Amino acid sequence: MNPVLENSDIGVIGLGVMGLNLALNIADKGFNVVAYEKNPNLLAIAIETAPSLFCCDDLQTFVHNIKRPRSILLMITAGPAIDEILGNLKPFLLKDDVIIDAGNSNYKDSLRRESLLYKNDIKYIGLGVSGGAKGARYGPAIMAGGDYPSYAKIEPILSSIAARTKSNDICAVHLGTSSGVGHFVKMMHNGIEYADMQIICECYSLLTIGMGLDAEKSSKVFESWSRSELSSFLIEITSLILKYIDQDSKKPLIDLIADNAEQKGTGKLASIAALELGVSAPSIFEAVSARVISSLKSERIKASAIFEKPNIVSTKLNLNILKNALFAAKICSYAQGFAVLRAADDYYKWNMEFFQIAKVWRAGCIIRADFLDDVAEAFVQNPSLSNLIIAPHFSSILKETIPSLRTVVKWSVSRGIPNPVFSASLAYFDSYTSSLLPANLIQAQRDYFGSHGYERLDKQGTFHTDWE
Amino acid sequence: MNPVLENSDIGVIGLGVMGLNLALNIADKGFNVVAYEKNPNLLAIAIETAPSLFCCDDLQTFVHNIKRPRSILLMITAGPAIDEILGNLKPFLLKDDVIIDAGNSNYKDSLRRESLLYKNDIKYIGLGVSGGAKGARYGPAIMAGGDYPSYAKIEPILSSIAARTKSNDICAVHLGTSSGVGHFVKMMHNGIEYADMQIICECYSLLTIGMGLDAEKSSKVFESWSRSELSSFLIEITSLILKYIDQDSKKPLIDLIADNAEQKGTGKLASIAALELGVSAPSIFEAVSARVISSLKSERIKASAIFEKPNIVSTKLNLNILKNALFAAKICSYAQGFAVLRAADDYYKWNMEFFQIAKVWRAGCIIRADFLDDVAEAFVQNPSLSNLIIAPHFSSILKETIPSLRTVVKWSVSRGIPNPVFSASLAYFDSYTSSLLPANLIQAQRDYFGSHGYERLDKQGTFHTDWE
Repeated sequence: MNPVLENSDIGVIGLGVMGLNLALNIADKGFNVVAYEKNPNLLAIAIETAPSLFCCDDLQTFVHNIKRPRSILLMITAGPAIDEILGNLKPFLLKDDVIIDAGNSNYKDSLRRESLLYKNDIKYIGLGVSGGAKGARYGPAIMAGGDYPSYAKIEPILSSIAARTKSNDICAVHLGTSSGVGHFVKMMHNGIEYADMQIICECYSLLTIGMGLDAEKSSKVFESWSRSELSSFLIEITSLILKYIDQDSKKPLIDLIADNAEQKGTGKLASIAALELGVSAPSIFEAVSARVISSLKSERIKASAIFEKPNIVSTKLNLNILKNALFAAKICSYAQGFAVLRAADDYYKWNMEFFQIAKVWRAGCIIRADFLDDVAEAFVQNPSLSNLIIAPHFSSILKETIPSLRTVVKWSVSRGIPNPVFSASLAYFDSYTSSLLPANLIQAQRDYFGSHGYERLDKQGTFHTDWE
Repeated sequence: MNPVLENSDIGVIGLGVMGLNLALNIADKGFNVVAYEKNPNLLAIAIETAPSLFCCDDLQTFVHNIKRPRSILLMITAGPAIDEILGNLKPFLLKDDVIIDAGNSNYKDSLRRESLLYKNDIKYIGLGVSGGAKGARYGPAIMAGGDYPSYAKIEPILSSIAARTKSNDICAVHLGTSSGVGHFVKMMHNGIEYADMQIICECYSLLTIGMGLDAEKSSKVFESWSRSELSSFLIEITSLILKYIDQDSKKPLIDLIADNAEQKGTGKLASIAALELGVSAPSIFEAVSARVISSLKSERIKASAIFEKPNIVSTKLNLNILKNALFAAKICSYAQGFAVLRAADDYYKWNMEFFQIAKVWRAGCIIRADFLDDVAEAFVQNPSLSNLIIAPHFSSILKETIPSLRTVVKWSVSRGIPNPVFSASLAYFDSYTSSLLPANLIQAQRDYFGSHGYERLDKQGTFHTDWE
């Protein structure tokens, strides 16, 4: 048996790309890191490439190497693997040790695990980590939820590895004392990311299929947008992707990539959370749905042979109108994401500060953008803001850009170019800003066939009519 | 203690409106029914109004009154109440007794309960019952799943109480040997029902707010449609609802009903099931979402004061175009519903026959319509049909009606009249019929920030690019 050394500041379990990069990031900042990996291939890679880490495949050695009370960070696949490792760790854990789950766990699992561990005086932190492999290595956005004293103990590590904004703000924040908070906020980050990506794809579709621009010219459009108020990581990489030339074929690589999008499930979970919490989040849902339809490539080819696209004499779409449409759809998507966050906060009584969420997303993560400064400011000005759409800053942008979104939706609808998130965002805006909706008819129908009753505009109470 | 009589053909638990009506329906057909209700008020009503039933509030008396092996039908609120009553019944149950859960249980709960009871040789039938209070009393549509021999035993009762089509087909059918089947099919019926209702609401909105028709004139439009190929129960009751005059105010009642729609959750469950099974069902989702937004009345009033609706000089929308749009959106919604059913069938290996599902919905239930004959026929002609959209009958209708849906979406978008399901249905159609989608860009982005890899159109395999 290995001696008990207790000289590591933190232990990291899981040396896949994300775990290895995060461990290296921590070691670079001067902390001692012990790492555990049971997969011999991954372990060998880590031992060869990461001399700053002490890597092992024995859980007891691993645990005994960590200073007490211990901080153990998990970066392994969400799901049963987490429960398994928690079970294996249990015999070695002592009072006030902290488990930090840094993977994409379902927030409901985190809530469950937190209360299980709590019974043995073990603390649990749910840690949302965004930024992909590169972010993990050089500075991710970190969203934490869980026991505050435990967070305070690891805060020096998290703050030193986290991304920093242009103004040097640290993108690691404790958002609430429930472990569910970190994973919920990360999940909604990803839900918004799905919408952001699909909106960009719909623009790309309109530029190429709609207006006939090639990849290089489309790249230039996104490049110019990335120097505007739309500046964001995703717009920037889109511009870089579109101008990338495949070395073999000398063609734009984008034109050779298959159009069946994959997903790891966090967008789906965000949509399910919205449904469960009773919040309307159609832009996020449609972005998930668009990936699903894209994956049905053979069905689509079959269907496309049956139906011809509308035959439209090409007319140009003003690029500024398209840019405005993108901006409007983006605001609507973020409005939905924050509405889901507020509903979760109300339901679980998490007492999150929404401006903090916007702030932590300003660097390191996938949806990072200057835009988030304005989102944060909206919640600073009005912490109880019910919807981003009506914040003064955003309502004045929407007054200017929604007409463009209407134009773009009509333009794409005329041509049969799929616009699920553009359409859904506009329908969301039009619904949310309608004082009167046709839901009175739904209530009447429900009362007709199910005697469910209805309320009236002119009287208090619940009424039922014998309609026949 | 009451004597063991064993002279009832079936026991019914729960004498709310649905349970009482179903019990009366069974008794009317010549079967002996014993009923159990623990709520003294409901029990008193049943004893007073339903002399054909033997009603009691003692579970032992109830059970001992039923012929063995016993058939016990539950019509109580879905959720923990079912587990509670199953626990209470357990001491009295014997081998081969059958529990029939006729409420709106989550199909996952039914699967769980079935396997629990199975251990004690008790059989479980999940029974989807649609048609509201009136349907329960005079003929509902009945979708059954579970042990076939047990179903065969109660089949004479179910067949006698079920709705019948114009051609006298009985709308009670055994769709699979898993208890989840009945509740899953009923859930998807309700999901489609949500879309059907919202599509009608969007038409109503276009007729009234868009074209300035009053309730009476709008009623006439639906009345004429109910005499066309769009004929359905929901179109028919819409016409009746719109012409109903409030006795107090002498105004159309519809104009006095509050526009905040309620829901009991089956649409939400259908949307979650679609997401979990990885199926795109945006029309169903948007219908659920529309009810959610409608319930935010005070937020909507606030938002509507900030944003003005577009100022459009009114131009008429051709009623035939609107009718075609409704038809197209309806086909897209049903296509999604059946795609979810197929995915569930594949996942759970239920071996459902889709034409049977369409057939059982032709009478008794809320979405009953002549249209379902054509849906059934499409699956008779091609049992492995991947999507209703490409069935010859429906593709030829869509070729004719999709241009109208485009016109209607553009018309409503211009005016700021919310059209979530119209828009989502069109975007679904346009996506599903596109051989090329912009998802190649999503794959490139995912590879850029997450090294997730992508497939190519020109080579086999998974590729990764170092984009920078």
